[in-house]
Amino acid sequence: MKKFEEKTIHTEKIFEGKVIQLQVDDVKLPDGNEAKREIIKHPGAVAVLALTNEGKIVLVEQYRKALERSIIEIPAGKLEKGEGPEATARRELEEETGYVCQNMKLLQSFYTSPGFADELVYLYMAEGLVKKEESLPPDEDEFVELMEVTLEEAEKLVQEQKIWDAKTAFAIQYLQLQKALTK
Amino acid sequence: MKKFEEKTIHTEKIFEGKVIQLQVDDVKLPDGNEAKREIIKHPGAVAVLALTNEGKIVLVEQYRKALERSIIEIPAGKLEKGEGPEATARRELEEETGYVCQNMKLLQSFYTSPGFADELVYLYMAEGLVKKEESLPPDEDEFVELMEVTLEEAEKLVQEQKIWDAKTAFAIQYLQLQKALTK
Repeated sequence: MKKFEEKTIHTEKIFEGKVIQLQVDDVKLPDGNEAKREIIKHPGAVAVLALTNEGKIVLVEQYRKALERSIIEIPAGKLEKGEGPEATARRELEEETGYVCQNMKLLQSFYTSPGFADELVYLYMAEGLVKKEESLPPDEDEFVELMEVTLEEAEKLVQEQKIWDAKTAFAIQYLQLQKALTK
Repeated sequence: MKKFEEKTIHTEKIFEGKVIQLQVDDVKLPDGNEAKREIIKHPGAVAVLALTNEGKIVLVEQYRKALERSIIEIPAGKLEKGEGPEATARRELEEETGYVCQNMKLLQSFYTSPGFADELVYLYMAEGLVKKEESLPPDEDEFVELMEVTLEEAEKLVQEQKIWDAKTAFAIQYLQLQKALTK
């Protein structure tokens, strides 16, 4: 998949943070001209569509500084160094919700913003949830509120723009599709 | 929606590019402790699920430098200053595919990476497509190849990871859901 490849002439590293890195690449275009590409490197992330034994969706509300507001999302978090995506999914689910699960299945993976970032999100579905009495503590700088909602309630949260991110919208639509297919 | 608000103590602007800006905010957490947030500011973008009069999906293949590969996506592009999302959607559709459309409808909007970026994507559906003989030229640094595929072919491209981004995956799943609901 190298069609229209843009060959790197020079990479300037601008920023190396805790979560993201920024670089600007000078590239040679297919027609021989040159252009600049602003690129964010990200370690990748997981998101977990977790269903309780009553069929409810587990959601977390948290403040997103980039948006200057709180939104409601499915549990998610970034990959730690050397950690595989399923292990990350199990860890984030436990840290953010206190649940461990019997079945964890990869539904799909996708790039969130291919125009400027290499963030890849692995979307898992978790079933057979069991609440742990003593679960992993959340990250020390993370404050989340747990909710468990029906699919109909989740659809309402989308309409009210309280759910407003791509991975969660995809996950809810996935459940709508499964429901429509089994009717 | 200010639950668990993180108040800004200080903002350090790191980079101002053509597409994105990077800043690092020092914030006060709900428990009084402090943390750093790495934040990408983005002008927002549109994506267009365009259906031909034969019911095929219009796709474009392009090289994504951030991924170092080409992927297949629905037509998309970022908002220009002062440009509303529907105008952007019509412009990008014409620039990338040569199509203008009679009906343009907002399906949903979502943040792509709320953990570190404020990019909001407006997803439109375009129907009543008409090929223009002399359409807007593509951006000078953009090389795209046009494809028109059935829903079944699109599903296969997802399985083969040639379609591999969130907005396109959402759009295809949207069509799958509509098909299942009208059966």
